[in-house]
Amino acid sequence: MRTVDLIRKKRDSGEHSREEIDFLISGYTHGEIPDYQMAAWLMAAWIRGLNRSELAALTESMLCSGQVLNLARIPGKKVDKHSTGGVGDKTSLILAPIVAAGGLTVPMISGRGLGHTGGTLDKLESIPGFNVNLSLEDFFNVLRECGMGLIGQTAEIAPADKKIYALRDATSTVENVGLICASIMSKKLAEGIDALVLDVKTGSGAFMKSEEDAVLLAELMVETGERMGKRVVALITDMNQPLGRMAGHSVEVIESIEVLSDSGPADLRELSIELAAWMFFLGDRTKSLDDGRLLAETMIVSGQAREKFKQGIRLQGGDERVVDDPQLLPHAASRADVLSPSVGFVTSTNCEHFGTALALLGGGREKKEDRIDHAVGLEFHKRIGDRVEIGERLATIHYNSGAKLAEARTLIGNSYVIEESASSGTRPLIRRILGG
Amino acid sequence: MRTVDLIRKKRDSGEHSREEIDFLISGYTHGEIPDYQMAAWLMAAWIRGLNRSELAALTESMLCSGQVLNLARIPGKKVDKHSTGGVGDKTSLILAPIVAAGGLTVPMISGRGLGHTGGTLDKLESIPGFNVNLSLEDFFNVLRECGMGLIGQTAEIAPADKKIYALRDATSTVENVGLICASIMSKKLAEGIDALVLDVKTGSGAFMKSEEDAVLLAELMVETGERMGKRVVALITDMNQPLGRMAGHSVEVIESIEVLSDSGPADLRELSIELAAWMFFLGDRTKSLDDGRLLAETMIVSGQAREKFKQGIRLQGGDERVVDDPQLLPHAASRADVLSPSVGFVTSTNCEHFGTALALLGGGREKKEDRIDHAVGLEFHKRIGDRVEIGERLATIHYNSGAKLAEARTLIGNSYVIEESASSGTRPLIRRILGG
Repeated sequence: MRTVDLIRKKRDSGEHSREEIDFLISGYTHGEIPDYQMAAWLMAAWIRGLNRSELAALTESMLCSGQVLNLARIPGKKVDKHSTGGVGDKTSLILAPIVAAGGLTVPMISGRGLGHTGGTLDKLESIPGFNVNLSLEDFFNVLRECGMGLIGQTAEIAPADKKIYALRDATSTVENVGLICASIMSKKLAEGIDALVLDVKTGSGAFMKSEEDAVLLAELMVETGERMGKRVVALITDMNQPLGRMAGHSVEVIESIEVLSDSGPADLRELSIELAAWMFFLGDRTKSLDDGRLLAETMIVSGQAREKFKQGIRLQGGDERVVDDPQLLPHAASRADVLSPSVGFVTSTNCEHFGTALALLGGGREKKEDRIDHAVGLEFHKRIGDRVEIGERLATIHYNSGAKLAEARTLIGNSYVIEESASSGTRPLIRRILGG
Repeated sequence: MRTVDLIRKKRDSGEHSREEIDFLISGYTHGEIPDYQMAAWLMAAWIRGLNRSELAALTESMLCSGQVLNLARIPGKKVDKHSTGGVGDKTSLILAPIVAAGGLTVPMISGRGLGHTGGTLDKLESIPGFNVNLSLEDFFNVLRECGMGLIGQTAEIAPADKKIYALRDATSTVENVGLICASIMSKKLAEGIDALVLDVKTGSGAFMKSEEDAVLLAELMVETGERMGKRVVALITDMNQPLGRMAGHSVEVIESIEVLSDSGPADLRELSIELAAWMFFLGDRTKSLDDGRLLAETMIVSGQAREKFKQGIRLQGGDERVVDDPQLLPHAASRADVLSPSVGFVTSTNCEHFGTALALLGGGREKKEDRIDHAVGLEFHKRIGDRVEIGERLATIHYNSGAKLAEARTLIGNSYVIEESASSGTRPLIRRILGG
């Protein structure tokens, strides 16, 4: 088998066999196929597409490029959730304790923020002492002891994906549902889970702006997961405005603690309970989805999820006192309000720009190596459908450096679309459910 | 400007500006853009295509990546011919002396054989002492003294093309008329010529198997050349069987000397005179194409072209005595005949296989670094339309090593299609003429 022939085949819209995909992925991972040949193949695959069986082969091949966690020694089902990313999306921090408290094991391998989206690892690292870089052995021990663990990708997990993702980033071959599907699923299936709940975001703050693309990605991921013997569900959820009231790092930890303390914003609580319910249901913890919802509510109201969060923080080296005393988390030195320039109703937001503004303030990355400021954040006072007066606060910026404050402020102010009358009807937070 | 954005643009079928093309070519030539980004762009360009103005920009940018010869100090017009390559295509060796003898300057920068096609440089190197690696200064002096010079590509000429061609070869992005056009034209226009005659081969022994592709490539090259102020004509010519009776290196030099000595096969003589006539006409040496034909005939019949060839060989360090005594050229030790297995008429040949057979015998290259045997060759006794008897000779193999003789013999034998009745009508050698 020759790489040039495989590149030519995909260039000419051919279909790869499983052996051909294995040859490419294994050869690239081991450095036998150079970057430039993989780049040409990726572009051909981006444009010509990969069909369902090629995708399954690609996912499996990337999965097999590294280690698959063997969690058989931990009793019970292992479940996880993956979100395609958005602004203010902090459900992982809430779900993991709820579901672990409810009796399942949640081995979460998460990512960092990139571009306009936040990352679970960055949020966790705003908790003093919290270590996301556990060895697989330590991760295993934490999971066994408390049922939840949150770490970053290790060298052992799907190394092919790590290498391919970096190349895709440099060659404009990122935004392709097939390649995204293989990237996500190869990592998630390497966690050795039984079931997976996917939160596929759509809207102005999501990577998939159109619901059509989001549904296609969701279908591919559900199908790929099921083909590999996992129970998978995908919820298509709204990301036309931030989830909850806060976006940042420590401010999102605080908001997560609020939900775990039986308060917090309604949308965040609703989605967290819904996702947890699916995890309980697919993980065979409850007989129905309704029972799953009830169990999730109970874990919150009883305080068990909150206690589980403390235990999880402690076991990963973090200061668990932050749960009772959020003042121990990093706080930004200054605040600045963004005021409404007109009277009317918020009819939509350019949600991606909130994330961009946060990055400008030091709370995001341009490149993977960039350091971030965990204390900066955005507080949203108005949601779509809300009435606003002239000069009323739309949002509050929590910042340390004023260097790009004006720019961030303008970006945020312009992201709110305010019209004379409210748009009729509201779009539900959960749009569609696939699989399950 | 960022490379990833340009890759994305072409990926999404966008049209590049001249500045964008310059950024890519200049950045890649200077090592600022890595191979993997160029590979992704090339695949996107291969699949999405480049329009006429992008092609002109690409050609010019590749041309400007190196030196353009300044031949202004040599009086008169400078003209060249380029062939897209085939089996037995030796017209450069015949044309250069005819046209130089006729009073124009022919600065020919040629290539080596690759795959199933022969290369002018390899053929010339079968002449003892002939040096194709002149410095540009020595090339200039040879041109001034005798009006013809034949050398290989130098580091100064279109370095972008050299680098990009190697990458295309490794990433299956070779066979694209746009990229082929830019590659050919950037090199040819760097010769500082006034006019260019293109011999675009089509048929079973050509790179462009279909006449449609050959015509498209010809159109693009003519248009690109004209856009850059050159007089350009393209002849679409038949390559469904070898040109002339011989394919190899020294055997092709011998056949070229035959034509220059007013003998040799009719098809080779016809095409050589036609191409020379166009060179005379486009180079303003004659008022009409007919006058060009007449001048070309005169240069042959008078022996002036033959003398010019001797002078050219001498000035490039070669042994000019080969022209009078072809026995001084390398000769293969053994001969083997390929006999007809049936009676009937030759209706077609798989011409590419003749070139492949020659390569198997040591007369071609798999990789650019391979050494070749200048003495091996193929002699064709039958042409399309000829009647053959059982056991009659179709071809004779001139070989040194018998290692792959059986394989070559089978390949050659199977390349002749022999049927009961001759196909009606013969296709002309020159199919179409574009531009001029």
